[in-house]
Amino acid sequence: MLEKLKQEVYEANMQLPKLDLVTFTWGNVSGIDREKGLFVIKPSGVDYDKLKPEDMVVVNLKGEVVEGEMNPSSDTPTHTVLYNEFPEIGGIVHTHSPWAVSFAAAEIDVPALSTTHADTFYGDVPVTPALTKEEIEGGYEENTGKVIVKTFKERKIDPEAVPAVLVSQHGPFAWGKTPDKAVYNAKVLEVASEIDYHALQMTRRNIEVPQYLLDKHYYRKHGKNAYYGQENAKSKEHAARK
Amino acid sequence: MLEKLKQEVYEANMQLPKLDLVTFTWGNVSGIDREKGLFVIKPSGVDYDKLKPEDMVVVNLKGEVVEGEMNPSSDTPTHTVLYNEFPEIGGIVHTHSPWAVSFAAAEIDVPALSTTHADTFYGDVPVTPALTKEEIEGGYEENTGKVIVKTFKERKIDPEAVPAVLVSQHGPFAWGKTPDKAVYNAKVLEVASEIDYHALQMTRRNIEVPQYLLDKHYYRKHGKNAYYGQENAKSKEHAARK
Amino acid sequence: MLEKLKQEVYEANMQLPKLDLVTFTWGNVSGIDREKGLFVIKPSGVDYDKLKPEDMVVVNLKGEVVEGEMNPSSDTPTHTVLYNEFPEIGGIVHTHSPWAVSFAAAEIDVPALSTTHADTFYGDVPVTPALTKEEIEGGYEENTGKVIVKTFKERKIDPEAVPAVLVSQHGPFAWGKTPDKAVYNAKVLEVASEIDYHALQMTRRNIEVPQYLLDKHYYRKHGKNAYYGQENAKSKEHAARK
Amino acid sequence: MLEKLKQEVYEANMQLPKLDLVTFTWGNVSGIDREKGLFVIKPSGVDYDKLKPEDMVVVNLKGEVVEGEMNPSSDTPTHTVLYNEFPEIGGIVHTHSPWAVSFAAAEIDVPALSTTHADTFYGDVPVTPALTKEEIEGGYEENTGKVIVKTFKERKIDPEAVPAVLVSQHGPFAWGKTPDKAVYNAKVLEVASEIDYHALQMTRRNIEVPQYLLDKHYYRKHGKNAYYGQENAKSKEHAARK
Repeated sequence: MLEKLKQEVYEANMQLPKLDLVTFTWGNVSGIDREKGLFVIKPSGVDYDKLKPEDMVVVNLKGEVVEGEMNPSSDTPTHTVLYNEFPEIGGIVHTHSPWAVSFAAAEIDVPALSTTHADTFYGDVPVTPALTKEEIEGGYEENTGKVIVKTFKERKIDPEAVPAVLVSQHGPFAWGKTPDKAVYNAKVLEVASEIDYHALQMTRRNIEVPQYLLDKHYYRKHGKNAYYGQENAKSKEHAARK
Repeated sequence: MLEKLKQEVYEANMQLPKLDLVTFTWGNVSGIDREKGLFVIKPSGVDYDKLKPEDMVVVNLKGEVVEGEMNPSSDTPTHTVLYNEFPEIGGIVHTHSPWAVSFAAAEIDVPALSTTHADTFYGDVPVTPALTKEEIEGGYEENTGKVIVKTFKERKIDPEAVPAVLVSQHGPFAWGKTPDKAVYNAKVLEVASEIDYHALQMTRRNIEVPQYLLDKHYYRKHGKNAYYGQENAKSKEHAARK
Repeated sequence: MLEKLKQEVYEANMQLPKLDLVTFTWGNVSGIDREKGLFVIKPSGVDYDKLKPEDMVVVNLKGEVVEGEMNPSSDTPTHTVLYNEFPEIGGIVHTHSPWAVSFAAAEIDVPALSTTHADTFYGDVPVTPALTKEEIEGGYEENTGKVIVKTFKERKIDPEAVPAVLVSQHGPFAWGKTPDKAVYNAKVLEVASEIDYHALQMTRRNIEVPQYLLDKHYYRKHGKNAYYGQENAKSKEHAARK
Repeated sequence: MLEKLKQEVYEANMQLPKLDLVTFTWGNVSGIDREKGLFVIKPSGVDYDKLKPEDMVVVNLKGEVVEGEMNPSSDTPTHTVLYNEFPEIGGIVHTHSPWAVSFAAAEIDVPALSTTHADTFYGDVPVTPALTKEEIEGGYEENTGKVIVKTFKERKIDPEAVPAVLVSQHGPFAWGKTPDKAVYNAKVLEVASEIDYHALQMTRRNIEVPQYLLDKHYYRKHGKNAYYGQENAKSKEHAARK
């Protein structure tokens, strides 16, 4: 069942240690088949060097295991909420990458301070409010998903334009059109956090990039006028125009 | 004698360079056979790339060498005290991993600022008081063990729930049910220290995680209601419930 | 066409991941044949582990693609301006290396605080002013080149003596006699930024190196009296004199 | 000539990239044959991956090249002064390792804040005063050696007990009984600098280790009562005593 998606999710999971985004087993990637309404996720607590494509667990959009011998990631309910609430996303990743976790621990948004950030995130990556005692004690992982969704709604942030979040005192979740794109976004968040930490220590001025620089860099890589890379229709034109 | 334990202790020692926890020979792991009352420890000052399982030294709970050609780790008396005073532990590790040593040098507890910490340590990892002149000049390594034990008693910290300590101006010791678990805990301490350093530099607010978040994350992975990983009875139930 | 230069530019591009200067595809190197008035540049958005010498794109000094199946780097117009305005340079590199980007995000020059810097850069590496809304919205990459040139002219900095710049809120460009030298200079900038960050956090005193130390170190490695390395005529003399 | 020493010096040089102590060619190791009054040093500016044992250059204690096709390290006159003035040392190393250089740039001693430092350095590692204009413009490398020697004399520091120094605004030199020990000491200095930087950022209290902890750790590893490792006579006794 969903062999191709399992392979894809497996490969995206294996990118995490390669990109220095995980210690031990502290990360998980999932990917969804929107037509079937099923998603595939890493099993809980399995070492990356022992992980196999067939270990991936199939889960439906109620969060119930549909296929798989192993227990799915303990964060499965968070993924379930996000797939239900963010219908345009195809993959989700959670890590404890240390730069992003530092911002989550300090409860500070990762601000848009440079084009490295703006190329991927159309604005600050938000930190959620802390979960309440009640949200933590009952249905914790599901409520983690809900507080993410609430944060994006209340702050009027488009989850396609800013495909990542920091859960307060916990760590980053990122997503994208595919599991591979989600992992890419998680890495960008880690690098942007590292850059921001050092920039913020050096200066206390308001150093957010202006809106027009955010527009320029984000739309160089996204949308119908994108011209970065080999797939974008405008690339040739851009090269020729200059 | 104790061939299986020697192999286990050897492998745990070899994890130290792999996990970036040691420079040169600055680390040692031991493991105990509680029935026989004997523990096995790395020889003193031997390079990791020359270390062999048969080099491990066997020591009794008085700290006397029972078997082995080589001198045991100079920290053997510290291990002896900890095995005697913390009867539930099965393995001990000492390193000079730089993030944890920075907190030891600054004489600051590693505070519980995020779930990365709470997943393993049920509260702050304490730093001991400095040893006195007398404690250092006579029986230094034994007194290092004693000050660790005293710190846990006086601050009413359960060494099973917080399986690590910083010795003031020196560095971390960690322990666990097995040598392998002890090394795992030493790595978590290093990562938690790195995260905490950066979070503390960014914010001066009280950012300790609340008790209920500490409870949630610690007991997701520990005790009879744990549901993280493949071994815990509650895992399936957790997955199904969601 | 230009097979030797393509190979050289390819090899210089492949140095970027090896020297830890790029994440994903965020970097590009070009090299110029001054006689033919053509330069060779990395294609846009291609992974380093899939890059081949024959993928390099040939561009003329108007910025028009002369040969190549792929789209050239989206930063091609910046390279074009620099080759036109800095006639003595033979190679250019752009990266998002995180220490240098931190200074660009904070809009702080990388100051000449040590001989590591002075060996390569004859003075502070400047950060450009921020581009205006108009400069960003029309001909952004070309204007990036223009603001670099303007910065060097207005601050009376010789681009041969200080072969690198930080574009405000964006990141570093470096150049040199050859593509290989440009990459070397980009790495020096990254290391100097790392050193400077830590030195600046420890002290707030004016710690710029004096002019005579800058002279000594820069001219040990550059110009007719250089005596570092195996190629400089003065090396033997220096060794003998001592 | 001196084939064994050349091999030893070559191997010590090759440790530098392995221990992450050099970028490009920015480091050099030498070793001396005290009976013959000749030392062997890395050639200037040669890449580590192209270096061969036979490339090593033989120099006498006047700093004159006695054998070797290549130019010796441009820092040869510094090594010459140190060998003449510190008769007990057998090897010298110079690097631009970034943590130590940060302290040199900030002109701050690397203080003895932890046992990691005290195990190797019997007190703070001093930074020299800045060289004067005259010292830099005439015989710079020789004067670098002289300012090191003067620093140790004026501050009454024993170069055997504190086998390293930071040259102001430049970087570290370290030494030892052998070239291999010199490199070891250079690595300890780098790690101690990293630890100290973070400890100093976290606390502004006087956190120097007390004299008796310095004594304990330094003499655990040095002198007739040393008991660390396999070679020290007291090791067995220490193990037995406990």
